Amino acid sequence: MNLDIYKNLKRSNRELINLNPIQRGGILPVEAKKAIYEFWDGYSVCDFCSGRLDQINTPPVCKFLEDLAEFLNMDLARLTHGAREGKFVIMNSICKEGDYVVLDKNAHYTSYVAAERAKLNVAEVGYLEEYPTYKINLEGYKEVIDNLEDKNKSIGLILLTHVDGNFGNLNDAKKVGKIAKDKGIPFLLNCAYTVGRMPVDGKEVKADFIVASGHKSMAASGPIGVLAFNDEFSEKITKTSERFPIKEVEFLGCTSRGLPLITLMASFPYVVERVKKWSEEIEKTRYVVESLEEIGFKQLGVKPKEHDLVKFETPILDEIANRDKRRGYFFYDELKKRGIVGIKPGVTKEIKISVYGLEWEQVKYVVNSIREIVDKYA
Amino acid sequence: MNLDIYKNLKRSNRELINLNPIQRGGILPVEAKKAIYEFWDGYSVCDFCSGRLDQINTPPVCKFLEDLAEFLNMDLARLTHGAREGKFVIMNSICKEGDYVVLDKNAHYTSYVAAERAKLNVAEVGYLEEYPTYKINLEGYKEVIDNLEDKNKSIGLILLTHVDGNFGNLNDAKKVGKIAKDKGIPFLLNCAYTVGRMPVDGKEVKADFIVASGHKSMAASGPIGVLAFNDEFSEKITKTSERFPIKEVEFLGCTSRGLPLITLMASFPYVVERVKKWSEEIEKTRYVVESLEEIGFKQLGVKPKEHDLVKFETPILDEIANRDKRRGYFFYDELKKRGIVGIKPGVTKEIKISVYGLEWEQVKYVVNSIREIVDKYA
Repeated sequence: MNLDIYKNLKRSNRELINLNPIQRGGILPVEAKKAIYEFWDGYSVCDFCSGRLDQINTPPVCKFLEDLAEFLNMDLARLTHGAREGKFVIMNSICKEGDYVVLDKNAHYTSYVAAERAKLNVAEVGYLEEYPTYKINLEGYKEVIDNLEDKNKSIGLILLTHVDGNFGNLNDAKKVGKIAKDKGIPFLLNCAYTVGRMPVDGKEVKADFIVASGHKSMAASGPIGVLAFNDEFSEKITKTSERFPIKEVEFLGCTSRGLPLITLMASFPYVVERVKKWSEEIEKTRYVVESLEEIGFKQLGVKPKEHDLVKFETPILDEIANRDKRRGYFFYDELKKRGIVGIKPGVTKEIKISVYGLEWEQVKYVVNSIREIVDKYA
Repeated sequence: MNLDIYKNLKRSNRELINLNPIQRGGILPVEAKKAIYEFWDGYSVCDFCSGRLDQINTPPVCKFLEDLAEFLNMDLARLTHGAREGKFVIMNSICKEGDYVVLDKNAHYTSYVAAERAKLNVAEVGYLEEYPTYKINLEGYKEVIDNLEDKNKSIGLILLTHVDGNFGNLNDAKKVGKIAKDKGIPFLLNCAYTVGRMPVDGKEVKADFIVASGHKSMAASGPIGVLAFNDEFSEKITKTSERFPIKEVEFLGCTSRGLPLITLMASFPYVVERVKKWSEEIEKTRYVVESLEEIGFKQLGVKPKEHDLVKFETPILDEIANRDKRRGYFFYDELKKRGIVGIKPGVTKEIKISVYGLEWEQVKYVVNSIREIVDKYA
């Protein structure tokens, strides 16, 4: 066993501009880094625990959960290890084996896998249009539900991906919330790409459950998530153990502790502020789209952009790749030389990027760099 | 919402000697702290991921899982969010609803709660003796299993707590492993308090599964765990999604990322070394027991100690508490004045401590401090 490989672990990308959309919302502010020095040991948050993570007052976990619920305009909140774990908690506690989960065709793979783990079936709501917008037909939820009901299938949950990770399309959650209420089916909004980036109001969209991701969009070290829910479902979700009456079964007693939780808390004031500046992020994103479409990129997904995650078709890059001896890697190489990373190495047909949280100067630098690379080779 | 409470989060206990057994095995070595600076952002370990956490080569997650399996003498390993999540993975993938889990009466509450979440029943193996040793009757596994079989109950899993968190009793896992093999029932050894502190050899004890805890005993920031298992059960545990064939269902695709994983990896060489010094830790523990029994404490659990977690009956402290105006808090106060924490405030009937990983000088300081406090008031 060569133990030397675990010595001096380095992250080569650390100081570079990272365009990978999963990386942009999880960058820690200074406040969170400072808290890390305090709480890096194993059970650091448990010094003053009397048996329940959600009731710890020092550090203020208990108040934090109340504040998270308020932030999302939901009744209650719990910590999970991530959005996926939150989805599984809901499915495992609210649905019965064999129930259907009705979800959008742009749902994250973990929505399907969580359903599979909970032994549920899924039924998909398709697109209003496929290429190039891949816009979900939100009214289609009705049809899918009606069809299942006609076949006497039991529907346990309606799930909508608030913003999907493929095209960055923002869905009008209120529409699906209304359908869910009319049908009397519980409604889960997956906000892994929205909570912490943009304002989300659970009551306004009639969500029964919201899952969010600390490492994806709330400036926290992974893995951590938030599960917010309404009183109506509290009994099922927070059901306690028969033998250990203070322990919540679905959370196996306690979930996220340590640095993921501490960074989520320490970043919270910063996150509360940054969501207020969402419109500026959209401006940056639209600037990027406009600039890169001028050099031959084509934005996929709904236009104009309402989220920072952008997918482009990039035939111009593909064309260059066909001529370059590095093939598709030329683009990765050239960006890296300019201090920019986060694009999948070798990929040139389509790329996915985000400039979320970058300064305007950096955004312009990214655009100019890409323009320069295309100019150089085209 | 008062966001000021999340600013400058401090851990008041950080620099003190912490005797809480759950705290002692999770203290980070310098190597792990250094790695934190590199990897503190959200999806830091995912820069070079092509879809599976366990296949990432930079940082060396893939090799790490092989090394973990080798370290435990098991075939395969996966990361979980903690020992409890590992137990649930096993129960949810190996057992059928309604199956029985046969476990020891000293099992951690999460073993029961994981079974409850997985919709399983539990049957307990009791003590050879209750007070004062609370030694588990390992041969009793046979009887409990026979009884269940006589009633035509389906037994899905045998679970043994290698060292329990209440008395710190070390169980001879080989005995239960043999019973499990004879009966043909899968055998899970819960090593949350052993792996990372003392040597554990999975094949030697005939374990089919081992769960371990990074934050409890492997010098990692929480929450993270290890689940090691043998080839025979690989298919069930690592079953992949029908729709997303590279994603493992029980792990919801990926589990622990970020700082918990980075600290677990960076601490691994340190952990491999420290388990070799286990006999010295036992020496320290026995010294503590011997010294404190001289002043009227009485060690509960099996004697002589084979693990660092010690529970004492402390009638002398209780007697003082009855006379002191601070009641039971006098002991907490007096220890705190001497830079020692980790004893539950106000509790004086029984206390649970560990000096694991302290220098001899510190161990003596702890013993002398307690002796001094008792002398002062008795």
